[in-house]
Amino acid sequence: MLDRIMQNPPLRIAVVGGGQLGKMMTMAAKQMGFHVTVLDPTSASPAAQVADRQITADFHDGQAIRQLAADADVITYEFEHIDSAALIALEEGGQPVYPAPQTLRVIQNKLTQKEALAQADIAVAPFMPVAGYAQAKEAGEKYGYPFLLKACTGGYDGKGNALVASEGELADALTSLGDCELMAEAFVPFTCEVSVMVARSVNGDIKSYPLSENEHEENILRRSIVPAQVDDAVAARARAVAEDVMSLFGSVGVFCVEMFVTKEGEVLVNEVAPRPHNSGHYTIESCITSQFEQQVRAICGLPLGATDLLTPAVMINLLGEDGHFGPAMLVGCAEALSLPGVHLHLYGKKQTAPKRKMGHVTVTGKSLAEVEKTAALASHALKVVAQKEDV
Amino acid sequence: MLDRIMQNPPLRIAVVGGGQLGKMMTMAAKQMGFHVTVLDPTSASPAAQVADRQITADFHDGQAIRQLAADADVITYEFEHIDSAALIALEEGGQPVYPAPQTLRVIQNKLTQKEALAQADIAVAPFMPVAGYAQAKEAGEKYGYPFLLKACTGGYDGKGNALVASEGELADALTSLGDCELMAEAFVPFTCEVSVMVARSVNGDIKSYPLSENEHEENILRRSIVPAQVDDAVAARARAVAEDVMSLFGSVGVFCVEMFVTKEGEVLVNEVAPRPHNSGHYTIESCITSQFEQQVRAICGLPLGATDLLTPAVMINLLGEDGHFGPAMLVGCAEALSLPGVHLHLYGKKQTAPKRKMGHVTVTGKSLAEVEKTAALASHALKVVAQKEDV
Repeated sequence: MLDRIMQNPPLRIAVVGGGQLGKMMTMAAKQMGFHVTVLDPTSASPAAQVADRQITADFHDGQAIRQLAADADVITYEFEHIDSAALIALEEGGQPVYPAPQTLRVIQNKLTQKEALAQADIAVAPFMPVAGYAQAKEAGEKYGYPFLLKACTGGYDGKGNALVASEGELADALTSLGDCELMAEAFVPFTCEVSVMVARSVNGDIKSYPLSENEHEENILRRSIVPAQVDDAVAARARAVAEDVMSLFGSVGVFCVEMFVTKEGEVLVNEVAPRPHNSGHYTIESCITSQFEQQVRAICGLPLGATDLLTPAVMINLLGEDGHFGPAMLVGCAEALSLPGVHLHLYGKKQTAPKRKMGHVTVTGKSLAEVEKTAALASHALKVVAQKEDV
Repeated sequence: MLDRIMQNPPLRIAVVGGGQLGKMMTMAAKQMGFHVTVLDPTSASPAAQVADRQITADFHDGQAIRQLAADADVITYEFEHIDSAALIALEEGGQPVYPAPQTLRVIQNKLTQKEALAQADIAVAPFMPVAGYAQAKEAGEKYGYPFLLKACTGGYDGKGNALVASEGELADALTSLGDCELMAEAFVPFTCEVSVMVARSVNGDIKSYPLSENEHEENILRRSIVPAQVDDAVAARARAVAEDVMSLFGSVGVFCVEMFVTKEGEVLVNEVAPRPHNSGHYTIESCITSQFEQQVRAICGLPLGATDLLTPAVMINLLGEDGHFGPAMLVGCAEALSLPGVHLHLYGKKQTAPKRKMGHVTVTGKSLAEVEKTAALASHALKVVAQKEDV
């Protein structure tokens, strides 16, 4: 593909999904002069606001996906809950699709993902498939309580997961997850959760980013701290694991490898996302090459950029306030921006809802202590609320 | 305006001019969630490619400017050669226009600009208005040869300037500049050219950026080096002068103050641009707040961001190669991006022409020596050429 780079018309990238990841990917591509088309069911999606063109259609609309392909030299996607069959068909038709749809298919099912990792001797928590009450009970006996029941497909931000605290909760947990393919996983008593963004280029080069330490509330990422406050040996091990994961899948693009760090300094892979990730947003301001530019470089057959950390960073998600539904408004903007090193990202979503990801703030500075303090002040000032009708 | 920040619909910014400065301003605004409309005569202008909307019309089209105003909470512009009267009319109609059109009017005429600076005791080279041959000859006698003849309005990248080396060249110089308002300026035997980006907020705060050292060829900026290789005392003086200039005009937004540094360490203001500037592109990667985010913060009534330099930088303009006209193609992209710390910006202009500004590269790294070396390699690799019909 290199021979086509930056010709006129410029190399055309298609992104399936117009959310915030698609938006930031598009901005990285537009900076470098690429043409970007976005597919999203919502008109004027966040990505479409900065893209050359949007095709407004459902992700399962075969005709729209073919239309997208016709307008693109390479196709990528910003989330994993899409129809891998449609992408496989495009790829079979000769269209480059990165990351490879076959990899997507393996990863988008948590059970096949874990099986692939375990087969490659990458450390994960013990797991097993669960088809009904008897097997769920068996998992409880095998792993002890609490353990996790997970829907194999479709979950995100904790949706599709249930922590089962005792045998008495088993029936309710099964009911809450509904009639779908399930798996069980042993609960890992971790000391912290970390993630590593890792990229692989068309020619097989792999580069990983510094560790982000992630804090969740109700299974939604709230805060990432970089560098993660772990031993150097743990950090090195986690990056090596992330690179092993990338080698295993052998795909092209940026992946996120989420891991648990145990008291003993062991690193267990929790989940792999085949795309840039919320916990890698800090790379925009803090690394030489952002995860989004890296994704563009990778899928366009360009060399990967350096991943060095320039400054410590704290990333805070701006979630819709509880109880607020409707046209979104950010308050506290002037106060937050008066603090040093505060970088505001608002995604351009028109409607807020409780815990909806509306934007994020990355704070950079000289020391992590200083950055954490500033981030706490910015976080306290900024609220995404619903605009009152009479305002 | 603060009470309207980030409401839904988000604060709407209108940018007159859809070139590369408008594009980078728009990207900074979109990152922060603003709605951006661009006015430009060329459809799918660089800025329009990342904006929410473009109004395709001439800059002198009064109806289009009123339409732009109707779609915006605040109006700004990316270059100074526009009709200040139209902007003054909008401002009188109650529309915030930043920087103030009255300031634009003073600055867009080089003679009134220099008069304003001189009146405020800001050091500039000696100058005088020139109306015809006799006064031009008088200037030659007063300042010695060579001296500069300049068209007072409309010039850029050296167009509208003539260096007069001897009395014998006077007549030709006058003819080449044509029938317009002229001024003469003493030639300053400078040791280097520097510029300082400086911002002023709605509430009067002023922040300047580190000095950029600028190298021109045929009056077009080729390379900026940051920090400029001048004494600390000279750097401090230049920043103080830039802040004085900003105070003098009392306007809102980001200005560029270009200065000559003499052998004696004297700092003379050469030219002021009432907008972000090519020599400030390095701020995107090298400063906490880019000049484009700073412009957005300023015109939207937000606090200014920190201007600290994070890494040394060299910025290289990617100009259309001589002899090449037509559909643009960048060669050497993969080679340049394999070098560490190379940040590629392509503006999305479809046609190249000799010395047309098609993009730029900013190289960052640990030391200026390392960065200069990498920039030389990147510059050697990258060429903007016309795509051959048969490619």
